[in-house]
Amino acid sequence: MNKPSVFDDFYSVIPAGGIGSRLWPLSRADAPKFLHDLTGSGKTLLRDTWDRLVPLSGVDRIMVVTGRAHRAAVEEQLPDLLDPNVVLESEPKDSSAAIGLAAAILLRREPNVIVGSFAADHVIKDMRGFRRAVAEGVAAARAGYIATIGITPTDPAIGFGYIQCGDPLSIAGAPNAVTVRSFVEKPDLETAERYLAGGDHLWNGGMFIAKADVLLEQLGKAEPALLAGLTELAEAWDTPRRGAVVDRVWPGLTKVAIDYTVAEPAAAAGKLVVIPGDFDWDDVGDFASIAKLHSGGRKSDLAILGENARVLADASTGVVISQSGRLISLIGVTDIVVVDTPDALLVTTTANAQRVKSVVDALKLSGRDDVL
Amino acid sequence: MNKPSVFDDFYSVIPAGGIGSRLWPLSRADAPKFLHDLTGSGKTLLRDTWDRLVPLSGVDRIMVVTGRAHRAAVEEQLPDLLDPNVVLESEPKDSSAAIGLAAAILLRREPNVIVGSFAADHVIKDMRGFRRAVAEGVAAARAGYIATIGITPTDPAIGFGYIQCGDPLSIAGAPNAVTVRSFVEKPDLETAERYLAGGDHLWNGGMFIAKADVLLEQLGKAEPALLAGLTELAEAWDTPRRGAVVDRVWPGLTKVAIDYTVAEPAAAAGKLVVIPGDFDWDDVGDFASIAKLHSGGRKSDLAILGENARVLADASTGVVISQSGRLISLIGVTDIVVVDTPDALLVTTTANAQRVKSVVDALKLSGRDDVL
Repeated sequence: MNKPSVFDDFYSVIPAGGIGSRLWPLSRADAPKFLHDLTGSGKTLLRDTWDRLVPLSGVDRIMVVTGRAHRAAVEEQLPDLLDPNVVLESEPKDSSAAIGLAAAILLRREPNVIVGSFAADHVIKDMRGFRRAVAEGVAAARAGYIATIGITPTDPAIGFGYIQCGDPLSIAGAPNAVTVRSFVEKPDLETAERYLAGGDHLWNGGMFIAKADVLLEQLGKAEPALLAGLTELAEAWDTPRRGAVVDRVWPGLTKVAIDYTVAEPAAAAGKLVVIPGDFDWDDVGDFASIAKLHSGGRKSDLAILGENARVLADASTGVVISQSGRLISLIGVTDIVVVDTPDALLVTTTANAQRVKSVVDALKLSGRDDVL
Repeated sequence: MNKPSVFDDFYSVIPAGGIGSRLWPLSRADAPKFLHDLTGSGKTLLRDTWDRLVPLSGVDRIMVVTGRAHRAAVEEQLPDLLDPNVVLESEPKDSSAAIGLAAAILLRREPNVIVGSFAADHVIKDMRGFRRAVAEGVAAARAGYIATIGITPTDPAIGFGYIQCGDPLSIAGAPNAVTVRSFVEKPDLETAERYLAGGDHLWNGGMFIAKADVLLEQLGKAEPALLAGLTELAEAWDTPRRGAVVDRVWPGLTKVAIDYTVAEPAAAAGKLVVIPGDFDWDDVGDFASIAKLHSGGRKSDLAILGENARVLADASTGVVISQSGRLISLIGVTDIVVVDTPDALLVTTTANAQRVKSVVDALKLSGRDDVL
């Protein structure tokens, strides 16, 4: 594989962990979001992510961190994934542990390695724009920064977090990098519209690029015990002691998102830069997002997903996801979301798509794990 | 069974024929509307109808006209139904043939019989009000009229036909009987509101009470060939020739609703009277009607039907009918209609309930008889 020199020391990491509760009943514990084809591409989101990273880092420099339960499915999706690049979690410990462990393992294998972490279940189609942003991120990482990629908003989305841009920097190879003033959680519509109009907010794409040692040092400042655990795991990883150390150390690791251990503290310390990305991006976080992805922005469309979908629709818009093979008939329902699986049915609207998670929470509380 | 003398010469007829296309996918060719419990009473609509008529005519004076395919289901629902009171249609021929044949058979058995025809799939809970109206109808029939029962509207329903009342009559035992000025097909909302405000329109309950010979004479004026066929069938009915005559005559009978052969011509001839019925009534014609029946008029309710329904609803109103046993989750959908069966799913709104028939028509056209 001919890689351009800018990516020579670059390693991709794909944390493939989240279930995607807002996509229930499509996404389940045993069929998480990244194992579904939500774009109609014919490929799972995980496979799409892999195919996007291969041109950057090569097939032999992509590491996947996933749950033990998903090992077979992941390996089936990614037949070229090398054994040493499969990192299995015995239980979910959130993104600081997942990405931190990958960085720590890679750091021992390759002291100057730059790692880039890319979620397994996001959608990006503009390869050229993505590659350009990652290249700037790698350049910023090489200059000692932790880089994240922020996507130029195209609408006042309320389902995404935002990054407020600060001042421009002069980093070789990263002409568009700016400092980060602040991270903002999912805003309300009014705030999102202000962000869109103002022009200095980007969508938080959740992508991080940094030298492994820089990233871990930052993590250790916020969570020294977590860093110690990850370091112990990494030291044992490529040895026969791996299993024993995992069993002893992994269960006790702190569960915390990398946003809190790395991104926000690094921003506060002036060590984080954001690369504005002028490419399409979606985290496919809920069914409204799926409807939008498939409609090409047209409100009058009904998106139909499912290999054997049999849908008869009259004066209806929104999205239908069919996994049951049953005949589905819609009459006069607009912005509807219908997800039809063999054991569970969801009916809601795109406006309520973010509330799907509350159903999952209610099901957990009532012990109906059979459909989770 | 002690019957009051007013009903001595009275015979109930239950035409149990229609599938109820507007209730698809609940109602099917092999599971028509009258075989469902749509009121939550724990009894099918047919059984409810039977139980309503037993106090009027006695178990031995109720005739059921139904399709051959439904014989077993009907007899299972009505174990007291006498064999001679089961009239089986080899194919559906609409209400003139069904009610006309019953009248013709009963006329031969009992020359002065008064027949009352009551649909198998309507809902009436006020037994006292119903009985009072039928008693007036029988009195009017005895005086030589064809009587129908019109229900005092409680809302501007657009799913029902209406009867415009004419002048009062002085019929012994039928003090409320009035002539019929006209029959009106399902109106639009504006017209229905005018009817409701005006006070001289009643809902057409589709109930007819008349001496059998009067009813048949009227039918014969509009459809002499149909009357000849029914007479031939009736003459052979209680003889060994029944099967042969049915095979020869029934397939050729004209398919026409009794509204056109009896009700409208009789009204025009001044021979039809309407008895205003001050009781609850619903033809349960569509899912909006089911939602209304179950909500007790409250718009904020979600009606849930189905023995093993598992429904998790948040901020949702309308009606859910569950036949599949699957978990059904609704979020933020109002006036919704969800009908979940093992092989077909319908999602619509109460406002679109009348349009369900168009789906059935589309399915017929596309040859998907498997779900009809």
